[in-house]
Amino acid sequence: MPLVEQNSPHLDLLGRIRIVLIETSHPGNIGAAARAMKVMGLSRLYLVRPQLFPHAEATARASGADDLLTRAAVCATLEEALGGCSLVLGASARLRSLPWPLLDARSAARRGTAAAHSGEDVALVFGREHSGLTNEELERCHYLLHIPTNADYSSLNLGAAVQVVSYELRMSLLDDRPLIAEEGDYADAEELESFYHHLERTLIDIGFLDPANPRHVMRRLRRLYNRARTERTELNILRGILTETQKRVRR
Amino acid sequence: MPLVEQNSPHLDLLGRIRIVLIETSHPGNIGAAARAMKVMGLSRLYLVRPQLFPHAEATARASGADDLLTRAAVCATLEEALGGCSLVLGASARLRSLPWPLLDARSAARRGTAAAHSGEDVALVFGREHSGLTNEELERCHYLLHIPTNADYSSLNLGAAVQVVSYELRMSLLDDRPLIAEEGDYADAEELESFYHHLERTLIDIGFLDPANPRHVMRRLRRLYNRARTERTELNILRGILTETQKRVRR
Repeated sequence: MPLVEQNSPHLDLLGRIRIVLIETSHPGNIGAAARAMKVMGLSRLYLVRPQLFPHAEATARASGADDLLTRAAVCATLEEALGGCSLVLGASARLRSLPWPLLDARSAARRGTAAAHSGEDVALVFGREHSGLTNEELERCHYLLHIPTNADYSSLNLGAAVQVVSYELRMSLLDDRPLIAEEGDYADAEELESFYHHLERTLIDIGFLDPANPRHVMRRLRRLYNRARTERTELNILRGILTETQKRVRR
Repeated sequence: MPLVEQNSPHLDLLGRIRIVLIETSHPGNIGAAARAMKVMGLSRLYLVRPQLFPHAEATARASGADDLLTRAAVCATLEEALGGCSLVLGASARLRSLPWPLLDARSAARRGTAAAHSGEDVALVFGREHSGLTNEELERCHYLLHIPTNADYSSLNLGAAVQVVSYELRMSLLDDRPLIAEEGDYADAEELESFYHHLERTLIDIGFLDPANPRHVMRRLRRLYNRARTERTELNILRGILTETQKRVRR
């Protein structure tokens, strides 16, 4: 009877994992998310432009988890909420036309806890109740996380989605399989963004990218480097190449 | 990247699995449970003595899953709600003083879907919001199902608990491991209850059990036969023994 351990020493790693909610409309869902997190041992809640917060309904639904609301970081941008994170997983209800590396919630949780075990900060990003994540937000994610649902009725409540993901994070730390530390010294979110801006600027400089008609060039490049989980030293090399390229073109 | 299949042929087995809620106080939780079930493909909801039902708040929280509320079976007793079920799994927040066979939600879901695959009807029973299952209700269960939670804050919302269990049921059917059919022709809930009554009566008849001071005799016996998942033919033999015993004593 494989009852899992309640007091795994790995559970402390949940402190490295944050939940990011973007532009949540219903304050009750923020409260439900806080409760869902706390009951599974998560504590770091980031709110990007919440429509109503703080709010009595959030506090009511949080039940005894209102300390997470008090300590929640309210951010103006997603970039700010991802500060320091080197692994970003975005929850997505829809399967997009542009394919992005996709994991089910269980596999995503295992990646997340393995990264935390390696000392990385990890973000799980949840989009708006009705429209989810924009393409721009999606492009910040290394992987999309998908919770399998009924094809005829896939209306998973935001709080319920946070519950399932938080549960999977806890389960992956209670799992009897050893956590495999990942080796790389990965670039964090700011470093990657800065690289993408540098890359885009350079591609425009060399005339490869037409700002008036960019197509999906940057998106596809982001997907590539995100999937590869680019390391810091690799990024330094790439940036060195870009700098050199720009020098040549501008000369 | 192990993304699971969305359209496993096994998903039909969810039709053999019912969710039973006992004496739910908040109609909103009934609605949330219906939504949690439907989004994972479950459809059979049983309500034992709900405090307020039907109710506008249940319908509101069910969102598009109000068809499950319309079709819900409202029952006067747990016995009625378990009619025809040969595997009963009871969700329990607390770990009891009397040890009962315990499975985590993932293992319980696997047992449940394996039983459904063998043509059995399966019930997952959730107790009251604050006090859970009584000992008498617990004794109807073959196994207790436990969702691992934070030791310092284990206040899992009822709707959230149904969400996690429904998710695990769906995941176990999407899992790539083959479902192992269980072989036995198990006794159903009524047959077991009838046997337990017969057994208790017989134990009183033979003077083994003092109705004024029953201790935990029947509970321990229930635990034994439940854990063994007694088959129909075995039960017939046991009942034959009881009948014979009673004849002897009464003679």
